[in-house]
Parts: sequence; structure tokens; C-alpha cells
Amino acid sequence: MTSATGRTLAELGEFAMVSALTARFAEQFPPGEQVLIGPGDDAALVAVPDGRVVVSTDLLVDRRHFRRDWASATDIGHKAAAQNLSDINAMGGRATALTVGLAAPGDLPVSWALELADGIAAEAATVGASVVGGDLTGSEELMVAITVLGSCAQEPVRRSGARPGDVVAICGRQGWAAAGLAVLTRGFRSPRVLVEAHRRPDPPYDAGHRAAAAGATAMIDVSDGLLADVGHVARDSGVAIDIDPACFEVDEPLRAVGAALGADPMGFLLTGGDDYALVATFPDGVPLPEQWQRIGEVLEPSADGDVSDRVTVGGSAYDGPTGHQHFG
Amino acid sequence: MTSATGRTLAELGEFAMVSALTARFAEQFPPGEQVLIGPGDDAALVAVPDGRVVVSTDLLVDRRHFRRDWASATDIGHKAAAQNLSDINAMGGRATALTVGLAAPGDLPVSWALELADGIAAEAATVGASVVGGDLTGSEELMVAITVLGSCAQEPVRRSGARPGDVVAICGRQGWAAAGLAVLTRGFRSPRVLVEAHRRPDPPYDAGHRAAAAGATAMIDVSDGLLADVGHVARDSGVAIDIDPACFEVDEPLRAVGAALGADPMGFLLTGGDDYALVATFPDGVPLPEQWQRIGEVLEPSADGDVSDRVTVGGSAYDGPTGHQHFG
Repeated sequence: MTSATGRTLAELGEFAMVSALTARFAEQFPPGEQVLIGPGDDAALVAVPDGRVVVSTDLLVDRRHFRRDWASATDIGHKAAAQNLSDINAMGGRATALTVGLAAPGDLPVSWALELADGIAAEAATVGASVVGGDLTGSEELMVAITVLGSCAQEPVRRSGARPGDVVAICGRQGWAAAGLAVLTRGFRSPRVLVEAHRRPDPPYDAGHRAAAAGATAMIDVSDGLLADVGHVARDSGVAIDIDPACFEVDEPLRAVGAALGADPMGFLLTGGDDYALVATFPDGVPLPEQWQRIGEVLEPSADGDVSDRVTVGGSAYDGPTGHQHFG
Repeated sequence: MTSATGRTLAELGEFAMVSALTARFAEQFPPGEQVLIGPGDDAALVAVPDGRVVVSTDLLVDRRHFRRDWASATDIGHKAAAQNLSDINAMGGRATALTVGLAAPGDLPVSWALELADGIAAEAATVGASVVGGDLTGSEELMVAITVLGSCAQEPVRRSGARPGDVVAICGRQGWAAAGLAVLTRGFRSPRVLVEAHRRPDPPYDAGHRAAAAGATAMIDVSDGLLADVGHVARDSGVAIDIDPACFEVDEPLRAVGAALGADPMGFLLTGGDDYALVATFPDGVPLPEQWQRIGEVLEPSADGDVSDRVTVGGSAYDGPTGHQHFG
């Protein structure tokens, strides 16, 4: 292994790189007991005790979803895994296994690929999930494809179950990654805590199944932006949602960046993504689980059915950008 | 939908494209009963009655794994799905669900993406599997990432179970895709049957679970090349394998292409990949399942442990190329 680290993927070769990755996973991140067959065969085999598997997949593209000059390979691995693990969290489930596809140029250093793998496996290990397989191929553009499997101990919480009268609540830090990105975009490297939040999210992995157990009616993770993702819940549930800005405490680092950049820090909170906070709706009167905080309420949809009115902030339309599209 | 087909992904936008794809799947390829939650939520939910899920993932990169000037989007979709479904077949399982990630330039026609999706869903439908989720993102380079889930009715058949004395057998056409590629590479478009075999494989999807039920000791699908993939079985099982060239009937189209190109058609049979035939080992004396054909035998490994001797052809080392590496 040590002889491999100064080389490129092209010099090492595909099969040797796969062997190196497989050995690394086996040594440093021993498979959980749910892994019946791990990497190295035609397919992996994972135990699914309750007979239903939750599955989600995400692609990350170099310079669109991550930047190698802004984050280490380990950070990028953590973030790529977190984004996928968060999808299982948002269903009220627990992740058990990941597959990882890496498409990479031949001149990518072997060490970079190994550190990416370390980051993915380490993030997965925080919730007891293991990397069970993958694929490696050459490409011009660096790209990471992750699929995550998981289990739900109770009924999964979908986006479509919010009902008028429900309370809207959030768990996890929100707006930090967007503020960190704003800092990096302007060429700064501090406040460090926000830059770190952009590089490596810290999703509330225990919040999803606790919300499900507490009776959440709908849930989503904030990946595109708070208002954009709340909008998905509103549309899929056929309701309107009002976010109450007075519910938010603006964290000190967000205030500092807002002041430094001349931006309203509420913008980070309302439109920032990539922190992978969870937003859920709960029947009114149900005690919110620990660390969940009320931020709004579910309303009847407007009579004219105008979807642009589905999400309001303090009763009014929000006039800033609410998310991003990848082909925009 | 008709208004979308003359446009590009950038013109239509990410969310509208995802909606179009989801609607297309729902209309033309209704989800199987194993799909408890399909596309459109944070994650999908798939029934896994026996409590163990088989999972495999593959990446396909434009101009490396497919060429848009050589194959239609529908063909590329069929092939991308087939490659993944074949991995479940090679474990002795049956595929139930796929996730599909598409990374594509903004100028890709919407119609191309829809036809790709049709091909993937149609190929999956041949084995009763459904597309349950995915991801769509912009990129410079077109790339498709597929993950397939499946179930095994009995113990999965691994690569590592071959024992000296076992019979080696194959099921499915072999060498046709490689011969078709040789034809296309030289600028020809016939024999059409081989070109079609390269564009759209026809894997023996029923062969895997029949081999498992018949007592196969090891199994793999031929994706890299027959000798290369038999080599994986030999290495993982700690045995040697001799392929008997006299067992092969050289199909007429392969003979024709060999004659036209001045190539030995056995080269296509021994080193061709991408047909997704299955190779398995069976205890000697066990009746081979229908359509399986004996092609060799499992031997004790050579005393000196020289891995280059693990796979022989008619008792001798094969002196042609035996596969390809993606960073070579």
C-alpha cells in the first residue's frame, strides 16, 4: 500500500486500485454485522431484518458539488456520504450500507482516491453503515456516485403527509454551509467554523427516527435550501406552509458573516442548503422530540391554487432566490 | 411531455426533467408490487421478503463504455441496465429494483435522456425489476450510474467456491459483442446480428438462479472477458482452471467476421466481454442445468503458486490479451 500512494490511478491500474480500496475498507472500517457479503464479488449481500430496504442515490461532480482546492479528499468523502446518509435520515430510517462509484481521470493521485474512500467510510461508520461495494472507472471529469441502503424500524415518513394545522419544526444547524460557501466564494477562509461546516456537514443522524417515532407526518432533509425543500413538502402534501422568521435565533457566526459581507443572515437560514438539517411536520400538540425546534405551521392551500404561494415567510412571499437548479 | 422533446436539459431545467422522467416511468413501466415507495421522495422503499438484499453498482462513461454515434439512447439504456442486472444474475439472484444517476451536459436533448430512461426501464422490466429512484445533475461528461437491488431464493453463489474436480460451464452467447465491436471499430455495420449484440446484450437472466439451485459452487458474469473473468474465479477460489477450446462451437457470425478481419474467432470467444454470459463451476457428475454447456475443468493450483498459470487454454498459457483495464 505505501508504494501506491505517490502514484496516479493510471500508473497503479484499475484492478490494483480496487484491491487497495477493498483492503483499506477491510482494515480500517471492518464491516458491520449486517454485511453478509462485502466488496469483491459480483454483488454484495446485506441483511434487511424487517424485510424492507430504503434506498437513495446521489451523484457529485467535481467543481459543481465540490472543489478540490477548497476541501480535502477526506472532507469531500465525508460530505458525499453525509448527503446520502441524510436521505435515509429524512425517511426516519437508519443507514446500513453504501455502494460507491468513482469515475476519475487517470492522473488522479492514488492518495486522493484513498482519502476520499476514508472520508466516505468514516462518515458511514458514524451511523454504523459500511461500504459494501462499488465501481471504479476512468473518465475526463471526476465524479462520485453513492447509493445508500437503510432500514426503517417504523413506517417511513414521506414528504406527502403534512396536514393543515401541523407544526413545522427543524433539527440541526441550518445556513452554516451556505455562509461558509459565501465566505469561500469571496476568497476568505474564515470564520473557520462556517468554512468547516461547508466542507464537512454534521447532519442530525439521530433526529430522523426520533421524529418518526414521535409521529412526524412529513419529513425532508434540507439539501437544496430551506424554503425550496419546505416547498417540496408543501407541494407533495397539497398544503401551504408559513415559516415564522421570529422562531429563528441567528447564530453568531452567521451574524458576523452577514455584517462582513453586507448580507442579511436570514438569507443563509432561509435559502441555504448542504447542512442536511431535517424539517418535519408534527400534529399540533405533540411534544417535539429533543433538539427539534418549531419554525412555522402548515396551512390550507390558497383557494386559487397558485403554487408560488405555497411557502410564505411571516405570511408573505419571500423575494430572494430559494434554491438552485443544476442546468440553470 | 411532447413539448419537452425538442429541447435540451438546460432549457427544460432539472426539476421539470425529473418530473418528466418520473411520469414516464409511472405511465409506461408501472412499479412492481415489490416497490413500496417509488421515485419522488427522499428515498425509495423496496420489499425484501427473505431479509437479505443483493446490491451492485456500475458506472458507464460516454465514449468509454458507450458511443452515442454507434448506439441509440434506448440501446445504451438497455445495455447499462443489463450490465447491472447481470451482476445479480451472477449471484444466483433476481433483480427487483434499480436506481439511476444521470450526469449530463446541459445541451443534451431531453429526448435522448427520455429514451435512455426507456431503455433502462424496459430492460429492467424483462426481469420484473423497477426503477425506484435516481439523481440528475449537470456535468461536462455524460455518465450513467446504476445500482441494482435483488433477492436470492437460496444461498448466493460467490466467486470463491470452485473446487478442484469441478466442471466449468457457460450459459449465454459469448464473443458476439466483442466481434460486433471489432466490426464497428473498423467502420463496418454488419454482420448486423453482431453489431446488435454489441449494442444490446441478451444476458441469460434465468440461468443464474437455475445454476444456484443445481448446486453451482462458484459463478461470475463475463463482463471483462471470458479468460479474465474465469481468472477472477480461479484466484478467489485458490484453484487453477483449464478451458478446453474443443468444447466451443464457433458460431457462424463469428467465423464470418474472423475470416473478413483475418482474426481467429476463438479470440472473440476467449477474450470478449459485454455479452454477460454466465460462467459457473459445478461438482463433477451434477447434471448441468438446461442451456449450460461444459467448457473446462477446475484443477489444483500449480505447486509454485504462479498466478499467471491459473487459467490455461487446452493445458497451455493463452498468449493473447485477456481483458482490459480502464486506466491502462
